[in-house]
Amino acid sequence: MDTLKSDVTICGRPIDDYIKQVVDFHGSFAPGMLLGGFMVEHARRNLSPEILFDSICETSHCLPDAVQLLTPCSIGNGWLKIIDVGRFAIALYDKHSGNGVRVHLDHRRLESWGEIKSWFLRLKPKHEQSRERLMDEMLRAGVSVLGIARISIQKEFLEHRHGAPIALCPACGEAYPSEHGARCRACLGALPYKV
Amino acid sequence: MDTLKSDVTICGRPIDDYIKQVVDFHGSFAPGMLLGGFMVEHARRNLSPEILFDSICETSHCLPDAVQLLTPCSIGNGWLKIIDVGRFAIALYDKHSGNGVRVHLDHRRLESWGEIKSWFLRLKPKHEQSRERLMDEMLRAGVSVLGIARISIQKEFLEHRHGAPIALCPACGEAYPSEHGARCRACLGALPYKV
Repeated sequence: MDTLKSDVTICGRPIDDYIKQVVDFHGSFAPGMLLGGFMVEHARRNLSPEILFDSICETSHCLPDAVQLLTPCSIGNGWLKIIDVGRFAIALYDKHSGNGVRVHLDHRRLESWGEIKSWFLRLKPKHEQSRERLMDEMLRAGVSVLGIARISIQKEFLEHRHGAPIALCPACGEAYPSEHGARCRACLGALPYKV
Repeated sequence: MDTLKSDVTICGRPIDDYIKQVVDFHGSFAPGMLLGGFMVEHARRNLSPEILFDSICETSHCLPDAVQLLTPCSIGNGWLKIIDVGRFAIALYDKHSGNGVRVHLDHRRLESWGEIKSWFLRLKPKHEQSRERLMDEMLRAGVSVLGIARISIQKEFLEHRHGAPIALCPACGEAYPSEHGARCRACLGALPYKV
């Protein structure tokens, strides 16, 4: 990453710190993690700094890790949810009002950025892509390739159901949320393995 | 956490280091993160140390964060998947053969551990639970409350589809995986917001 400009920051931290954190957590500094960093930064700058926000990722690729590293939201604490519609987009929103912003990578803004476009739309096989040029373009493009829109989350989605009663599944004998029905979803075939 | 024994380790690291990491990432040292730490440790000890493993969490509560902090698996790198059947269980398995282990909290092993049982089966309201007693019981119980079983992941689940073609959705104009169909899932109503 010789081309990295040392003055670039992601959410206020020097990019080298972010890269180190990404390598520790994600395993490698993937292009989607660099772009994801800019996406989280762009979303946060367009939210009031004092609000408590929840988040949604529209893909499971890379973006959930950028959100988890750069915000208080994680999968396990429930502040990040993934709704995998396969779009490269994140939403951050006030956890009480549901008002917030959605940021996505906009393919219509990629005409001057050939490597990003090829990578995003999978226009050429991976071995023909240049990682160095891709990262360099991403760094130079920054937030200019991102679309942003105000959103408002549906009220029903905001309602948290804490403490739903627990049942014991008559099939496997394990504990599960009773609201799932008469048997747990595992015993209805939801898992790719049997115990 | 006065009752914490300083000699307890989680996946080879001193528990205080794990607690710090959890607070940074998850926001607080929740009971599920302590138990989740023991679960990951128990699973890893029962896998050959040299294998490359993927993972599944059977709930989105806490366990995904324990897996992400204590293994190379994350949501964004694709090595962790959540299949939310609402059971407090994790599976770690060889990413090539699909052979591995599943660890779950076994309610049948909780007869001597009243606070863990109350917490897990939601037998009393949260304000009547004692967090200190709960954590103390978890520390003393360790892996003795966990069930473990060998599993084998279905072959179809192991097959990765890299580089599926990208389409532009005729409704929203955004890029999405063409295998999802003629429109992206967001335009079919999968999200709790509209742009």
